[in-house]
Amino acid sequence: MGTLNPNPESPIPNPDGAKPFTAHCPVEVRFRDCDAMGHVNNAVYLTYLEIARFAYWKAADIGRLEGDISHIIARVEIDFRASARSGDVLDVALAVRAIGRSSFTMEYEIRDQAGRLVSTARSVQVAYDYAAKQPVAVPDAIRARIAAFEGQVF
Amino acid sequence: MGTLNPNPESPIPNPDGAKPFTAHCPVEVRFRDCDAMGHVNNAVYLTYLEIARFAYWKAADIGRLEGDISHIIARVEIDFRASARSGDVLDVALAVRAIGRSSFTMEYEIRDQAGRLVSTARSVQVAYDYAAKQPVAVPDAIRARIAAFEGQVF
Amino acid sequence: MGTLNPNPESPIPNPDGAKPFTAHCPVEVRFRDCDAMGHVNNAVYLTYLEIARFAYWKAADIGRLEGDISHIIARVEIDFRASARSGDVLDVALAVRAIGRSSFTMEYEIRDQAGRLVSTARSVQVAYDYAAKQPVAVPDAIRARIAAFEGQVF
Amino acid sequence: MGTLNPNPESPIPNPDGAKPFTAHCPVEVRFRDCDAMGHVNNAVYLTYLEIARFAYWKAADIGRLEGDISHIIARVEIDFRASARSGDVLDVALAVRAIGRSSFTMEYEIRDQAGRLVSTARSVQVAYDYAAKQPVAVPDAIRARIAAFEGQVF
Repeated sequence: MGTLNPNPESPIPNPDGAKPFTAHCPVEVRFRDCDAMGHVNNAVYLTYLEIARFAYWKAADIGRLEGDISHIIARVEIDFRASARSGDVLDVALAVRAIGRSSFTMEYEIRDQAGRLVSTARSVQVAYDYAAKQPVAVPDAIRARIAAFEGQVF
Repeated sequence: MGTLNPNPESPIPNPDGAKPFTAHCPVEVRFRDCDAMGHVNNAVYLTYLEIARFAYWKAADIGRLEGDISHIIARVEIDFRASARSGDVLDVALAVRAIGRSSFTMEYEIRDQAGRLVSTARSVQVAYDYAAKQPVAVPDAIRARIAAFEGQVF
Repeated sequence: MGTLNPNPESPIPNPDGAKPFTAHCPVEVRFRDCDAMGHVNNAVYLTYLEIARFAYWKAADIGRLEGDISHIIARVEIDFRASARSGDVLDVALAVRAIGRSSFTMEYEIRDQAGRLVSTARSVQVAYDYAAKQPVAVPDAIRARIAAFEGQVF
Repeated sequence: MGTLNPNPESPIPNPDGAKPFTAHCPVEVRFRDCDAMGHVNNAVYLTYLEIARFAYWKAADIGRLEGDISHIIARVEIDFRASARSGDVLDVALAVRAIGRSSFTMEYEIRDQAGRLVSTARSVQVAYDYAAKQPVAVPDAIRARIAAFEGQVF
């Protein structure tokens, strides 16, 4: 799992003018991540998002939401902007952008070591009670921890 | 790669009332596709879409679009509706839903052997000239072949 | 998981003159299984062995050995003889060749649809008690079921 | 790809008394590397060996052997000693142990951050002429570079 570098004070320069990201997670591209075109296969980017998301959970101390309640991924949207190759060290920038009643939305930007935008993505996670087998409201304590980590009120 | 069963006459029953799919591709879930939760990992579903897409290219005879022009994946949206497990045989239903100037949009439904909806997705592919290194118009011959395969004018 | 075809009466012709295999499991090569060389990546062959092994467990009715006792993989040896590509349908032939006190040895041959030998392998599994966290003797009932399935005494 | 730390002067302590390893490559275990048992799946260890091997090629400056001649993997033997989990940072120690006419043998030890031995392995690579499509003698210059890197004559 990547080492998350939450550093709101000095975000990576963001040439596209979008909102800066709270956290950054480095990911090394493995030869096995690439397909016959010699580029990182499209499916593998969801693994990169997952690596960064797990590092975020840990850094924000929300790995387990509360008791039997945990995250479950409900939706991913991803745009492929440029290709990456074996040996690249990618930066996955990510932030929680919105918290609803039982779900929250994250945004991501993946850049290569030259700062080139490789991919952008958005994911929706649901707070899920594994014992009751149904979605539940995002616990208040979690909402507060994310707000503290992101430095904004949701 | 899955065996595609293009069968517009007897589509798999579609309980959600959406437009029927032209083609269906079976995919066997491998133990390796599952993660520590015991379910198919979210990233692996993009591999299932890819398997079905490649079978579709072959069945519609558009594997290589024309000369140096080939498909490149530009975007995927996916909703995770239910979990799948090792040993499941999934049906990936798919169709081209729209063709633009240089891109076309596919829709997918993944169901398990009990007919339960596991995932829905949409992808956008771009016709890309690997020699010129830029997107190009979808060749007319390809447009015609997709129309013939889907039985509709785009 | 592949459909195992245990068919001791009509084994696949074995040009190398080795002992015939009891069981055969088909595996479809996915595009994602291949690496930048365009061939199935070496690591993926262990997944193919695993798919066949699980199908074997099921066919021989030894998926769970007994109570908390299950299989654990201890060793794999694999020789890469020829390359395979996306779309190939491989046949993984396999058999239990020896049963020791707490372990048993399997042999494998992977051939492509043209009968060409792609890979040979051997694996050692240990009967492991997950509750006691230690290897245990292969239960007699399991030994008997494998013997019945293989049609030989161990 | 991992950062190789070739450091013959201060090898990682080797409790098993085996010959010390020339090079060490760190590998971060991804959640996706683990299977339903919650441990790194057996096939993924071959990917870890590959990551370390590629880092070794680069460090020893033998990535491409000479002209059309490159490495091809011919055999892997691996013993699974202990399990690893998501978030572990493994050390893959490796060395070329023998060079034959057209092949060379590498040995590996994988340990976790606590120094526990997770896996040992051996692989055989062949010098392969992709133009002539056949194995060839290991070029003398390559033999010399490996000898220099390992600090021994082969």
